[in-house]
This record gives sequence, C-alpha cells and structure tokens, in this order.
Amino acid sequence: MKISSILFSTLLLVIISFSASMTQTKQTLNLMPYPKSVEFTGGEFRLTHSFAIGIKGNPDKRIFAYATRVLRRLSGRTGLFVPQDFITETTTADTFAMDLIIKRPGKVELGEDESYQLVVKNNKVTLTAENEIGAMRGLETVLQLIAADKKGYYLPGVKIDDEPRFKWRGLMMDVCRHFFDVAVVKRNIDGMAAMKMNVFHWHLSEDQGFRVESKLFPLLHEKGSDGLYYTQEQIKEVIQYGADRGIRVYPEFDLPGHSTAWFVGYPEFASAPGPYKIERNWGVFDPTFDPTKEATYEFLDKFIGEMAALFPDEYFHIGGDENNGKQWSANPGIQKFMKENNIPDNHALQTYFNKRLLGILTKYNKKMIGWDEILQPDLPKDIVVQSWRGVKFLVESAKKGYMGILSNGYYLDHIQTAEFHYLNDPVPGDTVFTPEEAKLVIGGEVTSWAELVTYETVESRIWPRTAAIAERFWSPQSVRDVEDMYRRLAVIDIQLEELELTHIKNYEMMLRRLTMGADITPLKIFADVVEPVKKYHRHFQGVKYRQHSPYTRVVDAARPESMTARKFRLLTDRYIAGDKSVKTEMLSMLKSWEQNHSSLLKLMDSSPVLREIDTMSSNLAEISRFAIAALEGKKQLEKVAKKVNLNDRLAAAAKPYGQVELMLTAPVEKLVRYVQGKK
Amino acid sequence: MKISSILFSTLLLVIISFSASMTQTKQTLNLMPYPKSVEFTGGEFRLTHSFAIGIKGNPDKRIFAYATRVLRRLSGRTGLFVPQDFITETTTADTFAMDLIIKRPGKVELGEDESYQLVVKNNKVTLTAENEIGAMRGLETVLQLIAADKKGYYLPGVKIDDEPRFKWRGLMMDVCRHFFDVAVVKRNIDGMAAMKMNVFHWHLSEDQGFRVESKLFPLLHEKGSDGLYYTQEQIKEVIQYGADRGIRVYPEFDLPGHSTAWFVGYPEFASAPGPYKIERNWGVFDPTFDPTKEATYEFLDKFIGEMAALFPDEYFHIGGDENNGKQWSANPGIQKFMKENNIPDNHALQTYFNKRLLGILTKYNKKMIGWDEILQPDLPKDIVVQSWRGVKFLVESAKKGYMGILSNGYYLDHIQTAEFHYLNDPVPGDTVFTPEEAKLVIGGEVTSWAELVTYETVESRIWPRTAAIAERFWSPQSVRDVEDMYRRLAVIDIQLEELELTHIKNYEMMLRRLTMGADITPLKIFADVVEPVKKYHRHFQGVKYRQHSPYTRVVDAARPESMTARKFRLLTDRYIAGDKSVKTEMLSMLKSWEQNHSSLLKLMDSSPVLREIDTMSSNLAEISRFAIAALEGKKQLEKVAKKVNLNDRLAAAAKPYGQVELMLTAPVEKLVRYVQGKK
Repeated sequence: MKISSILFSTLLLVIISFSASMTQTKQTLNLMPYPKSVEFTGGEFRLTHSFAIGIKGNPDKRIFAYATRVLRRLSGRTGLFVPQDFITETTTADTFAMDLIIKRPGKVELGEDESYQLVVKNNKVTLTAENEIGAMRGLETVLQLIAADKKGYYLPGVKIDDEPRFKWRGLMMDVCRHFFDVAVVKRNIDGMAAMKMNVFHWHLSEDQGFRVESKLFPLLHEKGSDGLYYTQEQIKEVIQYGADRGIRVYPEFDLPGHSTAWFVGYPEFASAPGPYKIERNWGVFDPTFDPTKEATYEFLDKFIGEMAALFPDEYFHIGGDENNGKQWSANPGIQKFMKENNIPDNHALQTYFNKRLLGILTKYNKKMIGWDEILQPDLPKDIVVQSWRGVKFLVESAKKGYMGILSNGYYLDHIQTAEFHYLNDPVPGDTVFTPEEAKLVIGGEVTSWAELVTYETVESRIWPRTAAIAERFWSPQSVRDVEDMYRRLAVIDIQLEELELTHIKNYEMMLRRLTMGADITPLKIFADVVEPVKKYHRHFQGVKYRQHSPYTRVVDAARPESMTARKFRLLTDRYIAGDKSVKTEMLSMLKSWEQNHSSLLKLMDSSPVLREIDTMSSNLAEISRFAIAALEGKKQLEKVAKKVNLNDRLAAAAKPYGQVELMLTAPVEKLVRYVQGKK
Repeated sequence: MKISSILFSTLLLVIISFSASMTQTKQTLNLMPYPKSVEFTGGEFRLTHSFAIGIKGNPDKRIFAYATRVLRRLSGRTGLFVPQDFITETTTADTFAMDLIIKRPGKVELGEDESYQLVVKNNKVTLTAENEIGAMRGLETVLQLIAADKKGYYLPGVKIDDEPRFKWRGLMMDVCRHFFDVAVVKRNIDGMAAMKMNVFHWHLSEDQGFRVESKLFPLLHEKGSDGLYYTQEQIKEVIQYGADRGIRVYPEFDLPGHSTAWFVGYPEFASAPGPYKIERNWGVFDPTFDPTKEATYEFLDKFIGEMAALFPDEYFHIGGDENNGKQWSANPGIQKFMKENNIPDNHALQTYFNKRLLGILTKYNKKMIGWDEILQPDLPKDIVVQSWRGVKFLVESAKKGYMGILSNGYYLDHIQTAEFHYLNDPVPGDTVFTPEEAKLVIGGEVTSWAELVTYETVESRIWPRTAAIAERFWSPQSVRDVEDMYRRLAVIDIQLEELELTHIKNYEMMLRRLTMGADITPLKIFADVVEPVKKYHRHFQGVKYRQHSPYTRVVDAARPESMTARKFRLLTDRYIAGDKSVKTEMLSMLKSWEQNHSSLLKLMDSSPVLREIDTMSSNLAEISRFAIAALEGKKQLEKVAKKVNLNDRLAAAAKPYGQVELMLTAPVEKLVRYVQGKK
C-alpha cells in the first residue's frame, strides 16, 4: 500500500483501522522533514550488535566519516555495542546489514541532487543515492526510523523515495550582536544536517561587531570585535565542517549600513568623520560607507577579494538593508557628488553603490545575494533576493525574473510559534505566483538575530522551531498537518540533543541560576506557561537592553513556545467541543498553577531577580481559580464573578510582566465565556 | 569577632546562638575552598545597578578581562544591568564600588604568591593582592559571597585573609582514551579557576591516541589520532587561556610504555616490529619504546625540543608508568644490550631510559615530573614525583629529598564519593612525614582518566567532586567538616554551570535519549538512587568496553555519587539515633521507590536499552517495602520476614546490574537490623 505524503496523515488513520496486523510504530513514524513518499512494505529489520554499514560506488570520501557518526548515534540511542570502529572504503561489500549505494561524488553547491531511496527489508537495509549528499539525507531518515518494542530495536519495513521541494534551505546566524564560538556554530550545523537543511548563512559584520580575521585589513577584527572573531583557520574549519555535511557556508558582510564596527579601525571609509566605537546599543544606526570615494571601492575590492578566496561558495551576501541615509544627507561632499552625477536620492545612491559592489563580486566570480532592498533594475539574473520585508518583495523580484528566498515569517527573534512558521510557505497553495514565477522562489532561510540571545539561549530560539521550518522547505507543500507536526517535533526535539545542542538542557540550568540552589520546581511551573513577549516588544517596556546586559532572567530562560500552555489550550478546546473527559486533567493542571504562587513567593525572598514576575504569578493563581470555578459549573463561576470583576481581572492577566506573557489567559477566558454562555 | 578557619564550623554554631542580630547569610557562607581566615565585620554591601570595578596598581593586563568576566557573572546571577562594558586600565580610580589594588604583575609558575585580602564594608569592597593571580582568587570569593534577602542582593560585611595551603593544585585530563575538544578543555579550566586550582596537566599521548600536532613528526598526529588532535595553534590558545586565569598548563607524553599510538606512524622506535594500529581496547599493552637504539633518543630529542618550545611551563611530564616490559624481554637485541651494559632487569633498563630522557629535558630547560615509577637514585632535586600508587611512594620520595604530589585517592574514575576524596589529605594530621619531609609534599592532582567517559559524561565525573578536592588543596588542613562541605558543594555545583560545564545538565539529556521522548520521571527516580560500580569493576562484569562502545546507558547517565541515597542514609541514621521526626520524609521517599517499578517496566517496553536494570528496579521496590514495614514496626517487619528471606533478598539487592549499584541497600539493611533489634 502506497501512502502519498499528500494525504499521509489522514490516510494513515484509515489504514490503521483497516489493518489490525499493523504495529503501533507505523502509526507513529517520527520522520521530519517528512519524505516525499513513504510506502509500508511490512516486516521489520531488527537492529542487533552485528549491525554494520558498507558503502559501494563512487562517493566523495566525506561519506565515510558521516556514516561513522550516524553509526555512533545509532549505537548511542540503542546501547548496541556495534563492532565497526570506522566505516572506510576498504571494507568489503555484501557482508553488511546496511548498504549505501552511491553513484558519484556530490558537489556542495546550489542545485545539487539530494534525492535518495531507502528500502528496509527483514534482512537488509539499502540506501541508494545519486551522490553522498543524498545519502547523508537518507542516513538521517534511517536514524529517525529507529523504533522499539519489547524484543528490541528495529527499523520498520518501508520503501522511501525522497527529495527536497526547495533547493535553498538555510539558516542565518547573526554572530555579531552577540558572538558564538566555533563550537556553537558547528553544533547548529549538525542540527541543520539532521533536518536536511543545506545552507548556512553567516552574518559576519554589524554595527556591534566585525567577526572575521582580515589579513589585509587587520584593524577590522582587531578593533571591531572585542577579540571575539573567527580566525581564517576557523572559518576554513567551519566551511569544511559544513561541506562534510552537504551544507554550503556563505558569508554576509552587510553594506553600506550596519557597518559601525568596520569604522572603528577604518574611519576613513565612513560618510562622516570618526572616531567610531563599537556600537553597544540595539537599533538602526547612522554609520554608512561613503559611496562617493574611490578609496571605498579600492578597499572593498581588496577586502572582498580576500573573503572571496576564503569562502568557496558561489554566493556572497552584501546585506544592503536598513541604510537610514542620515550620514549621506548630512555630508556636503556626498550631496555634491549626487548632484554632479544626477543621482536623485539616497535610494538611487545605494543603487549606484550596489552596482559598483556587483562589479567587484563579478571580478571575483561571486554571485550577489542581498536583502530585498537590493532589488533594482539591470542586475544579472543569477542574483538572489532574500526577502525579509514580506512575500510581496519576492513577487516583485520574481516578476522581474530574479530568484528569491523567503525569510519573512521565519524570524526566530519574533518569538512566534512553530505552527506560525510551519504554515508560512514560500509558495503557498493559494499563491499569487505564476508557475514560471514560482520556479524563481528557490527556498527560504530561517534567521537567528542575536540582540537578545547569548550562547546560553541562542539554541533554544533556533531549535526545535527551525526543524518545523526545515520540513516546510523540504517536504511537499501538502504536508501541513499541524498536530502531526507537533507530535513528531516533540521526538525530534530530543534527538537533536545528541548533537550537543543546548536548546533543552539550558532551560533548567538557567532556572537553577535564578534560584541560587533552591528547589526550582515553583519557578519551573511558572516558566513552563509563559513566553517572552512577541516581535520587538521587549525593547519597549522600560528595559534598555545593551550588548552586555544580563540575558539570564526569566524572560531569557522561558521558551519561545510554551508546550504546557498549548496542551491546556487544546484540552480547553476539546472541553468546549463537548469532550468532558478532559476535565480531570485540566483540573490537575489548574490546581498546580493555583497552588504555585505561595511557593514562588518564598523563592523570591532569596532570589530578588524573580520579583519582576510576582504580579504575574499571582495572576496565574487567580485565573486558575476562575477556570476551576468554570469547570465546576456556571453557579460556581457566578459566585466568583460576584466577588471580582472577571473581565477586568482577565484583562489584567493578559498584561506582560518582566517581558513575559502568560499564555493561559486566552484559553481561560474562552472557558469562562463558554461556561457563561457568552459564546 | 574573628573566626579562625580551624574551628570555623563549630564556632559558627556557637556564635549563631549568641548573636541574635546575625543574619542568616552569615551562617551559610557558601565559600569553597574555604578561606584561611574569615572575620565577620557586620553590615553589608548592597549590590545595585551602579556596581562597578576599578583596578589600581601594577597588575598584568590579564586581570582586566578576568574582572570583566566576573562582572558579567555577577550581572548574570543577579539580573543587575551594570553599566561597565569592559574594565580597562584607562578607567579613573576612586569612583568604583569595588577597588582591586594589585602590587605587581604575577608569573604563572610554581610557587607564585596567590594570596589576597578582601574587605567588604557598607559602602566599599576592597580586594588587595600581591599580584593579579591572587586578585583572581579573591574575585572568585566575591562571587561566592553574593547573598540575597527581600531587599535585593548584597555582600555580607567581612574581612577575609586567604592564601593556599599547597602550591600545586592540579587537574589531569586524559584526552587520549576519548578525545575532548578545546571547548571542553577550556570550560574545565574555567571550573578550575573558580575553585582556585592552578595546574592543568594535559595527558596527551596514549596507546589509544596521540593528541597533539607535531610539525617535525607529522605522522604522530596524522596516523595516531583518527584526526582527533589539537593543532599547535589550539595548544597555544589553551595555554594562554590557562595563563589568563593564573593556571599553569603542562603536557604529559607517556614514555616508554602507553605508546602504541606513536608507533602507528613511527614503528621503528618500538621494541618489536610493526605495523601498529591505534589500540581500541582498554588495559595495559605491550608496545614500548626501544631504549637501546640511539635513533630513539634522536627522535625524542627533536620531539621534546618541539614540545618544550610549545609549552612554556618549566615542568614536563614523561609518564613512566605501567611498562609491562614484555616487548623488552622478548627482543634479543635488547637483551644483548642489557647484558653488555650490565643492566640487570627491565626496571633498571627503564632507569637507563629515564636518565637519557632527563638529559634531553635538561637540554631544553625543563624539569621532570613523572608517575611514581620514575623514582630512582641520582635524579636532580627539582623533579616532582606524582604518586598514583599510594602515599607510601610520596613518603619514599620525600625521604630521598624529592618533591611529590598526591594523586592516589583522587582518581575520579574509581567513582568514589566527594567525602572519600575530601578526607584524603596529602599530609594528614596524623602524618608519618617529618616537618621537613612534609614541606616536600607540594600538593596534589585530581586525575580524570577517560576510558569510560565521553564528552557527554566527563564533566559529570570531574564536577562537583573536584571542587571538594580543590578545597583539600587550598584550605587549611583543619577544614574537614564533611556535612558542611556537602552543604556548600550543592550551591557551588550550580554556580559551576555558568561556566558552560555540562556536569548537571547532561544527566537528564541522557535520560531523555534513553526514553526516546517518553516521560523520564520513572527512570530518573531510579537513576537518582544508583551509582556506577566502583573502582574498575565495570570491566569485569561481562561487558567488553572499547573506544567506540556506547557510553550512553544508565550507568553512564548515573552520577558518581547519589545525593538522594546519601540523604536517605542520613535520615536513616537519625531515625536509628532516636529522631522519629524523619519518619514521614523517609516514608514518602520509600513509597515513591516502591511504586516506581511498574512505571519503569512500561518504559522498558519502548526502551529496551533499559532492560538491563529491570531486576534492580524490582529489587528497589522490594527493599523499599522492607523499609516501609520496618518503619511501621517490628510486627509488620516480622510479617514480611515470614514471606521472604530478608537476608537473601537484601543480599540480592546489593548485586550490581547493568554496571550500577543500588545505593539504598545498606541503609535499608541497617534499618531492618535496627528494628529487628539485631544491632
């Protein structure tokens, strides 16, 4: 029976009810991103101590180390003492439990074939791929297939045919606002590989830091980085690390704005006289390259030449966003230049600058990619527009014949839900793109901006939400069952930890620091149901964040999406829909919240840093009482309503404190209205 | 009132009862290692957003970055938005909440002054030190002094006078059996600095891996490391990292045994013909340098010359341990050489080898340190003997006038308690050393051997137990109140997490992997009361461990010391001593263990890797029932004893499963015997 991924979740339910012999595993495949096609063939391959992998064909050698790492992860999850120390090309074929059959070496470049076919039979696992990059994608699927029953671990009998929907599936890391060392970058690249992503966009320069060693212009990193930069050796190491996982690594140097840190060492290229200091605040700042000086282009030519040699990828990101034009407007020399050259406004001046940049990139055999502001006439057709301001800019660029990738809707620092990002499709079903235009949308990139994250929290913002987006980039458009996504995401979330990612484990670590050694339980009960405020509201609530502010408070520990609140929301919806069986579980949750406040108050005495959530903790207890009353019936709720103004109190509970939001207010309000008969 | 640390814990109790005005903080200073002298002067310094640090005097510049990191940690713990971005030498004095007054630049070498004086007054904190290394030690004390009340955070008014008892306070990391990358090494060095340790001993070569790049003999790392080695740039980076924290970094190259990995690239220096392969098993192996060939010394001269230039420390560790002599005895050429040169046995041959090595070290201005086997006549008096086999070798070396450091009793891989290590004193009160000999015992080193640990678990073996040993090395001999040590260790344990150490957070991460996404609670309840088997018993229970075995099972997740079991043990002792008030708490613990088995059984169905602890989980439930019956009284216990043979069942519960031990058997047996009236 063939299950097309288009309808897989619906059909699965049908199949399960028809097929009594089907084991539980088949209902609960935890694949993410879900493959193009999964066919259940019956039976299963039992994993034992003698499991081993053989590789046939003509792959690039990097597959040997990759497959060895996969074997270690399989062994780590199952506790199986598998005998292979290393998978090497010298191993003889046909004696292996699992064969990798790979036609040719792959190239780590845009558009490379990443397809694979996986067949799991009772006595053999066969993974076939055009090149080793496809094989890597398939190996990740094998790890996700591992299932267990009383007898041990196994892979269910399947035939999987898989390939990506989009060819550009990226993660952008801002390492400038806060710096992340090579270890952090590497483990996030590992996470990307596990999620079949293939582009790492390295945002390397900003007002707040210049993060790469330049041998030609050493004052860039020496004066612009506080000593926090990557050496060229480290850059090469990361590029190699990406390539070994089938992941392109390309740099962004944001020009002409976002460039304060450049001018600390080289003020002569700015549009206003220096001296400059590394920016410590957040926002959009004035310092901008002077596009009217030839010296600027001589400098950029040499610098880009140096970086072009360092980064082998064909694409080179020149930023181009958020130039406020203030330095240009205030500089008489620049104004004179504009008049003399018939450049009507700052936008046109940036167009002029970009054209000069394009010439430099072309000289070094690089193709341009930039934020959507770069879109202008007369650009070559191989450039890529990265849309951060919205899908309309993708449409605009596609209409002009330019390739585009979507980042709008994938801004992790907006603190949206996995669901929100998951349903944000570069080319949705009801797209306004013509089929020809749609082809120009070649993928998307998740963006991890780093104003409000440090090495302690950046991974909890990237993962697991990026896994949901990775599925959007890889799987067929029709794979969009939100509930099934969350079910699988919960498992994938934990598997990502084996790559040393700290997205789960730093949560309680941060709670422990906040409570200074006291029992964290009351704080965890609270933090489990709050989320940081959304969009950029954190900057507008009376707290002035700077580069070296403490990012260690409750709002930083709190996860971007409260799974506990989500669960309560779903239970509430079921209750309102008439399923009263959920009442017991709801009451149990509500009582733990109601009783939590006094314990948390006690904690605050020894941890004054928690004072800022005092009121919200009290509100949590109060709305929990409302919900308990509502579950007890209309009369009980009316009793409560006589004592307090429910509307006022629910409105009060919706207010943020300490930059966190209480995620239970909406479902409690819904429940109250339902019981009141108001909806 | 001056509290000498000699009697601090006893006196503290007296003072507390006499002084009603004393705040709670003063009873509960969480300093570790405890200072030589702490005087409470009353009052307190309130920490506010305007806290800032100024540095006066003539320190080495490294103090500026160190103090800045301390300020960030203070801000991170308290949530205070302190204004200083960086502490620099250009800041003007006298406007700071805290002054560092430092006389001269320090030297990162054996015997450097590490003393400091700290005075906390209501309006000023003053830290005075001979050099910046002492100031670093004092800054760590400041962080540990942070206390809180309802009004906020503060430092209690104190006058602290502190200096170390021993001048060599080391941690040895074996990075050969399993490799740990630079990030892991660095964060452990951070942990050392927090605990005022000052020597990092880097065990860089072994049968199972050669871990440093050699430019003169590149086949050493190319063929001997599986690609897992430190580049010379990375070595320099770590040495600098240590120096920036007042920590010496010196290398060990284990010779002439433990050297298989060298011979993979250079078989010609072995005592038997090659080829050699990197050893994948654990144990003592035959491959040994050929001490009779001049080529061996020419090679070692060049290699040691290269490494001597790389490592600036005056000491250089030549290993010298566990040469089994088999290759020497089996080699006719070596036998002939011994006869011709009147070398009676293998021990004498190693003495000859060591003398030649000593010549090479001397040529490169290095002093020799080695394991206690190196002890032999005619060595210069500046060598250091590292005793791994017992204090008697320290005595022997001291009697001969040699300096020694103790490692016996500090073997983390023996999986002993913090208490065991803590009470293991290099020069105990009842020492057999004469005062002159005692002076030759200059300290000790914790050893972290890496057969059974990976990057996921190594830190949970090092921390927090190493913190207790660090106190042994730093604090006066008389500081040995075990209960107070554990009280402080619980707080310090959590503070160590801010240095990115994974010793706490990887525990639940590993449990999550074992349960594949299911609720970990039943597994955690179990794992909380077991410990890995002690000494090297793991190797003798039917499981053959190799380099690439899975180190991800329950035994690996389990902590070396169960604090839950310790707590139950203490409660049991109190109960037996007549304090029946603990009964409720004991019953509550026992019931959770009794009820856990069925939940854990269910988990095993989906996590077969847990099957190995099935019997022990059942035993846990059973002995919990015994203990509950015992707490209910003699009659109830007798009822149980009629149904099962208590002695047999308790003996059965003492048996290890899955290489873990159930740490509750002893206290339950004690309780049962007590109620039976047998003791």
